[in-house]
Amino acid sequence: MQRTETGIKGFDELLGGGFPKGKCVLVIGGPGSGKTIFAMQYLLHGARKEERGLYITLDERPDQMKSHMTSFGWDIDKLESEGKILLLDATPLRRSKRSLSEVESYEHELGVSLPELTLQSLIRTVHKIVDEEGIQRIAVDPITSMILRYHELPKRRRAVLLFFDALIDTECTSIVTSELRTGVLDRGFAVEEFLSQGVILLHTLVHEGNVIKAIQIEKMRGIQHDTQLRPYRIGKDGIEVFPKDRIF
Amino acid sequence: MQRTETGIKGFDELLGGGFPKGKCVLVIGGPGSGKTIFAMQYLLHGARKEERGLYITLDERPDQMKSHMTSFGWDIDKLESEGKILLLDATPLRRSKRSLSEVESYEHELGVSLPELTLQSLIRTVHKIVDEEGIQRIAVDPITSMILRYHELPKRRRAVLLFFDALIDTECTSIVTSELRTGVLDRGFAVEEFLSQGVILLHTLVHEGNVIKAIQIEKMRGIQHDTQLRPYRIGKDGIEVFPKDRIF
Amino acid sequence: MQRTETGIKGFDELLGGGFPKGKCVLVIGGPGSGKTIFAMQYLLHGARKEERGLYITLDERPDQMKSHMTSFGWDIDKLESEGKILLLDATPLRRSKRSLSEVESYEHELGVSLPELTLQSLIRTVHKIVDEEGIQRIAVDPITSMILRYHELPKRRRAVLLFFDALIDTECTSIVTSELRTGVLDRGFAVEEFLSQGVILLHTLVHEGNVIKAIQIEKMRGIQHDTQLRPYRIGKDGIEVFPKDRIF
Amino acid sequence: MQRTETGIKGFDELLGGGFPKGKCVLVIGGPGSGKTIFAMQYLLHGARKEERGLYITLDERPDQMKSHMTSFGWDIDKLESEGKILLLDATPLRRSKRSLSEVESYEHELGVSLPELTLQSLIRTVHKIVDEEGIQRIAVDPITSMILRYHELPKRRRAVLLFFDALIDTECTSIVTSELRTGVLDRGFAVEEFLSQGVILLHTLVHEGNVIKAIQIEKMRGIQHDTQLRPYRIGKDGIEVFPKDRIF
Amino acid sequence: MQRTETGIKGFDELLGGGFPKGKCVLVIGGPGSGKTIFAMQYLLHGARKEERGLYITLDERPDQMKSHMTSFGWDIDKLESEGKILLLDATPLRRSKRSLSEVESYEHELGVSLPELTLQSLIRTVHKIVDEEGIQRIAVDPITSMILRYHELPKRRRAVLLFFDALIDTECTSIVTSELRTGVLDRGFAVEEFLSQGVILLHTLVHEGNVIKAIQIEKMRGIQHDTQLRPYRIGKDGIEVFPKDRIF
Amino acid sequence: MQRTETGIKGFDELLGGGFPKGKCVLVIGGPGSGKTIFAMQYLLHGARKEERGLYITLDERPDQMKSHMTSFGWDIDKLESEGKILLLDATPLRRSKRSLSEVESYEHELGVSLPELTLQSLIRTVHKIVDEEGIQRIAVDPITSMILRYHELPKRRRAVLLFFDALIDTECTSIVTSELRTGVLDRGFAVEEFLSQGVILLHTLVHEGNVIKAIQIEKMRGIQHDTQLRPYRIGKDGIEVFPKDRIF
Repeated sequence: MQRTETGIKGFDELLGGGFPKGKCVLVIGGPGSGKTIFAMQYLLHGARKEERGLYITLDERPDQMKSHMTSFGWDIDKLESEGKILLLDATPLRRSKRSLSEVESYEHELGVSLPELTLQSLIRTVHKIVDEEGIQRIAVDPITSMILRYHELPKRRRAVLLFFDALIDTECTSIVTSELRTGVLDRGFAVEEFLSQGVILLHTLVHEGNVIKAIQIEKMRGIQHDTQLRPYRIGKDGIEVFPKDRIF
Repeated sequence: MQRTETGIKGFDELLGGGFPKGKCVLVIGGPGSGKTIFAMQYLLHGARKEERGLYITLDERPDQMKSHMTSFGWDIDKLESEGKILLLDATPLRRSKRSLSEVESYEHELGVSLPELTLQSLIRTVHKIVDEEGIQRIAVDPITSMILRYHELPKRRRAVLLFFDALIDTECTSIVTSELRTGVLDRGFAVEEFLSQGVILLHTLVHEGNVIKAIQIEKMRGIQHDTQLRPYRIGKDGIEVFPKDRIF
Repeated sequence: MQRTETGIKGFDELLGGGFPKGKCVLVIGGPGSGKTIFAMQYLLHGARKEERGLYITLDERPDQMKSHMTSFGWDIDKLESEGKILLLDATPLRRSKRSLSEVESYEHELGVSLPELTLQSLIRTVHKIVDEEGIQRIAVDPITSMILRYHELPKRRRAVLLFFDALIDTECTSIVTSELRTGVLDRGFAVEEFLSQGVILLHTLVHEGNVIKAIQIEKMRGIQHDTQLRPYRIGKDGIEVFPKDRIF
Repeated sequence: MQRTETGIKGFDELLGGGFPKGKCVLVIGGPGSGKTIFAMQYLLHGARKEERGLYITLDERPDQMKSHMTSFGWDIDKLESEGKILLLDATPLRRSKRSLSEVESYEHELGVSLPELTLQSLIRTVHKIVDEEGIQRIAVDPITSMILRYHELPKRRRAVLLFFDALIDTECTSIVTSELRTGVLDRGFAVEEFLSQGVILLHTLVHEGNVIKAIQIEKMRGIQHDTQLRPYRIGKDGIEVFPKDRIF
Repeated sequence: MQRTETGIKGFDELLGGGFPKGKCVLVIGGPGSGKTIFAMQYLLHGARKEERGLYITLDERPDQMKSHMTSFGWDIDKLESEGKILLLDATPLRRSKRSLSEVESYEHELGVSLPELTLQSLIRTVHKIVDEEGIQRIAVDPITSMILRYHELPKRRRAVLLFFDALIDTECTSIVTSELRTGVLDRGFAVEEFLSQGVILLHTLVHEGNVIKAIQIEKMRGIQHDTQLRPYRIGKDGIEVFPKDRIF
Repeated sequence: MQRTETGIKGFDELLGGGFPKGKCVLVIGGPGSGKTIFAMQYLLHGARKEERGLYITLDERPDQMKSHMTSFGWDIDKLESEGKILLLDATPLRRSKRSLSEVESYEHELGVSLPELTLQSLIRTVHKIVDEEGIQRIAVDPITSMILRYHELPKRRRAVLLFFDALIDTECTSIVTSELRTGVLDRGFAVEEFLSQGVILLHTLVHEGNVIKAIQIEKMRGIQHDTQLRPYRIGKDGIEVFPKDRIF
């Protein structure tokens, strides 16, 4: 099976070369685990190999995200202007300064509930951009707010499946970030972990008073891969994984 | 009691030969535990012994599943064309690109709630295929989405019983995969564990910073069997169990 | 107080001779703990002593149960034909192939909610059979589905009391199996544990990676008894308890 | 402050002589912890000292309770006929063989919800009996079913207070048994623990595979008392506490 | 900042002299932790220093509370008659023997829901008494029942704030007792802990089978204070804290 | 990226100089962890560097807060009169002595639910003050009550985002305090932790009977920072962090 290198130092080793090409991978982590850094590092590597990337931000404003990335010396504006990375701002609420009440009435006019509206429209937009712009890598960061809108588990499952399928149909290699609800190792599993083809976990553990960041490939259909917890750090050049080390 | 070999290396030893023939066995595991690999390995072994297998996928699209299996050198397409394995795609939502809202209105027209519709129709379809095609092995992967549709425990119990009975009535030896909700050993039990005739647990444990995969025969009515946790790995040829080893 | 031997190897020792005659004992265990084996072993021992037994199955079909028992060399059909053990199939849903929707409409016609219907009718049937057939031992396996139908705790308590009383009024010595919700030792207690006159717990523990089966007499009103956790195994002749051993 | 001896071997030592006279003490324990034995032992001791006792049973039928007590060589019937112990059967549901539906319609006719009815009527009855019969010791066993009927915490608090006050107004020394919801030491506290003047906890702990029974005076307003966990056993003569021993 | 001595042996040392004058301090503890003893000891010390105290009881009847305090040789009646301590019985339900149903109809007539009624009226009463009687110390024991009446967290927060402010406006130094929901150290925090200016925790811990009582100043705005867990015992003279000791 | 010094002794070292300028940082801590002290210390440092600060109090009354700060020798009144620190009292409920019922009717008249009202109006007020007064540092203490008003997670997320964006748009460097729900290290994460650009955790841990205060930079987008748990204490001059020490 063809691979798509992540370009994250030490991590492709764990994957045995990279993500399986054309698949959709979930990246789950807690606050400060580096989900957005992971996503952008993945697109940057593509940009270097002339694979155009699409970054879809659902919570944070693009300008904010860009300013954060400068600390790694990543000039997103430049890559954007060169057309190597496209940014889709899926945060209408944020861009416009509309109040919550306005938004709700707006939804009401449309006679649709927010979940359907957003999920459907997002999928349509993604397909359109990918076709027109020849995108090869997609990063959705984070999917959480959309998943949370489905309160009943069966409907949530269907929505997540629908979205993952849509990404797969683009034939891009996609990553979708999601919020890890708890810091414990023996936690409950999230619906999306079962439904995605690959799951990367970014743990933040506290062991004997030490905070330890550990990455784990929980699942990666279609390829052989490492299954252990491996330490990683967020350094000057982004995420660096230590593929041969143990966490403790 | 007659046996049906699983063909999973090292595992039939734990069972003392294989599954009890004609029974329905539940395979429960977390994300990345290898439920689908287990199911397919089981059908492949049947195919080699001229026992036709039926694989029913409820979440993942057959084309996706097939591509994942290539990493084990399993050519499902070939087996399908030879009629040794039949694939039933029970994921209408996925195949069609219909939106959630469309699906819901569609259900509405039928004047039935989704659960009944799906469970009943699935049972009818399975019986029809088994009768016409002379199936001897069935794998349903995974049953979770259907179980989740029943919110009240008593109704859920009845639905699960109804489904397990239907599989038993086919006189095939069936496996049904289900999602393990948590990674902890001392977890709560799921309804389906009590109602099935056999339960295989695929654990993913974290012990002293190590990720360990362990298989356990929690229950297997009608036969003597090993009851311990045994390590297993997902290698180049699929799942391999180490029947004499301890997990730690 | 008179005793009723269970005939389970090593277990009557813990009880100091057997169950108190005429009482109703709860047997609680997880999946694969051997609740049904316990129940049947109890009736078989009665059969040997010319005490007629009534086995009431609420989930599993009699034919299935029988086939499972063959692995212990127990010929239930023979005992049934000799009238030593009677089987009451309280699984209407299962025997008939009616769909869930049909059943619900059926309930609707009767103008009664399922719980009352079943509990009352079951009690009436049991009394009738015991009177007509001179039953001395009863096993209800498992009661769980009926208990779950009462969502409010006070109503559940009353239903359980009503049922236990009905069994006591038969003057038989009865056992009722129930599903243990979790594998942990320090678990919450179930309503039925407080309301029954005796409680046998079948634990499945994981200690240092080992799966251990342990039996415990949590409660047995009217007699002196052992209170410790004792190891047991499910062997060729059914359940065997080691009354002098420690679990670890 | 005057004391009322419990007569439970080794226990009065922990209390420094007995319960504070005229107070209401809660005895909380899990299944098989010996709540009923504790209650009856308390009344028996009174009987020996010519203090008439009233035993109020809310779940178990008096005849059943009596038969259980024979194992301790306690002849309740005799004490009853001698008028030393009075038994109030507060289990209408049980005595009459009425079905649940009948009972509910009966409640409906009365135009009152079950909780008020029972609590109020019970209080009235207790007062009447105490006045007419000159009772000095009361045991209510167990109060749980009545507490559970109040779903909202504030209403539950008021009901429990109302009931405890009513017992205090009788000027008897009363004990009320209640069900411990979990076996863990670091558990949540129950409403009634805060509202009663004294709380005795009957723990069943599992320590290194051993089952240990431990009694603890969690609270006893108005007197100095031991506060440690002390081992106890249920022997031939009822409950025996070892006031100087440690549990482990 | 001026101080108000608690007079609790060893405790003022932890506070560096006493409570900050004019503040409102929360005292949280489990059943039997000595909340009421703490409250009364605080008022008694004031009485000795000619600071009049107001004790407001919300659950327990004053006569009961008084009788409990006699075990410490505290003659509340005398102090009351001398006007050194005032007792406000805020337990209408208790004083009157009205039934729950009566009370509810009573509330209905007033056309107000119980929470507002009680909270508002209590505040008005407290202000009136303080102004007329020149109170300097207040103890509210316990506030729990009033807090529980607000089911929605935001409303609960506002009610608690409103009440704490009212006490602060009296310019008295107040303590409010509240029920600790669980015995675990790593527990969830209660709303009132965040909103009060000071929080004293009375823990009851079980360590290696020993029951240990520990006091902790979790929070005390405006002053420097000890932050460790310190052992305390309830002795003949009330609560005694060991300010230099460790709990284990 | 430019920095904004916190001025908290030892803490800027962990940040490598201070907060990223213009960002919004969340400070989460339990009761008594020093959230308000942290906020005020941050503004005081600004005042010294001629950066005007705005302190917004949502629960506590300004006069109370001020009096608490005197223990650190901080004269907020003076700074206020010099215009170096502005205090916005966002606690209408508190200032006015209106009853809950009045407030609710008031809300009713406005025909808006409290959440929208407050969030929107607060944002408007903050923008107005910042523009008119040339504020450079903002502290909102605490945001909890406003977050709690949104019961549905998706709405809560949007409200939090809306508020954080509003603060960012002021171009001030802001801190927002929030209540930590539990004392455990392996806890669930709060919505706001994922949505803010920086998260500071103030832990209160109990280790071998010792209470330990530990600060942790969980997240700080845009800069390199320390990630470990570091001990801190609340001393005579406010919070002091020990950037090179381990907690145990």
